[in-house]
Amino acid sequence: MDPDQVAKAFVEHYYSTFDTNRNSLGNLYQESSMLTFEGQKIQGSQNIVAKLTSLPFPQCQHTISTVDCQPSGPAGGMLVFVSGTLQLPGEQHALKFSQMFHLMPTPQGSFYVLNDIFRLNYA
Amino acid sequence: MDPDQVAKAFVEHYYSTFDTNRNSLGNLYQESSMLTFEGQKIQGSQNIVAKLTSLPFPQCQHTISTVDCQPSGPAGGMLVFVSGTLQLPGEQHALKFSQMFHLMPTPQGSFYVLNDIFRLNYA
Repeated sequence: MDPDQVAKAFVEHYYSTFDTNRNSLGNLYQESSMLTFEGQKIQGSQNIVAKLTSLPFPQCQHTISTVDCQPSGPAGGMLVFVSGTLQLPGEQHALKFSQMFHLMPTPQGSFYVLNDIFRLNYA
Repeated sequence: MDPDQVAKAFVEHYYSTFDTNRNSLGNLYQESSMLTFEGQKIQGSQNIVAKLTSLPFPQCQHTISTVDCQPSGPAGGMLVFVSGTLQLPGEQHALKFSQMFHLMPTPQGSFYVLNDIFRLNYA
């Protein structure tokens, strides 16, 4: 399968899950997974979901502007780099964000998120 | 050495070299290295330097806002995620950018850039 198509499918799945049912994002992470969210470092699927579900907005809407991807080396991983906007309820302007994911293959032929770094780019 | 310190030192070295002597950035890449620059995919140290030195501005000034880093897996690599601004000559406003690097260790105890993805975040 075309890596760009895999990356695009992952990104669409990730943000639609984030915007509708943040709790189930845990399936995409494992115990070794790392999230750096606005500089805060969090490790492990359970802790990552706890962080994402505790963000101070119950609803949000991600809109993707760009998706870039590259293979990350011989282990079969893939780097996915996203830019877009995040609309929070009651806010007039959407926030710009950038996020990168390092996807690693699972024995089942799928991917999990090993690395996740998120930053808002205040406009 | 603290990975955050390594990442910070790399980032300072990379952008000061970019802003003063773009030609010598080639030392940081190898033949397997990949750059995605505003969606354009380029591979190999020589092609990457050719791209960076052909950008339509002879001088520029990067200012770093944030640097995040995470280990990328058992091969000893490191993911470095940067946000900042890029000031071009004659432009009133600096452009926001995000960039990620995947650094891999060399046998000499240094790092090279295996993956590099750059995007402007138009404000």
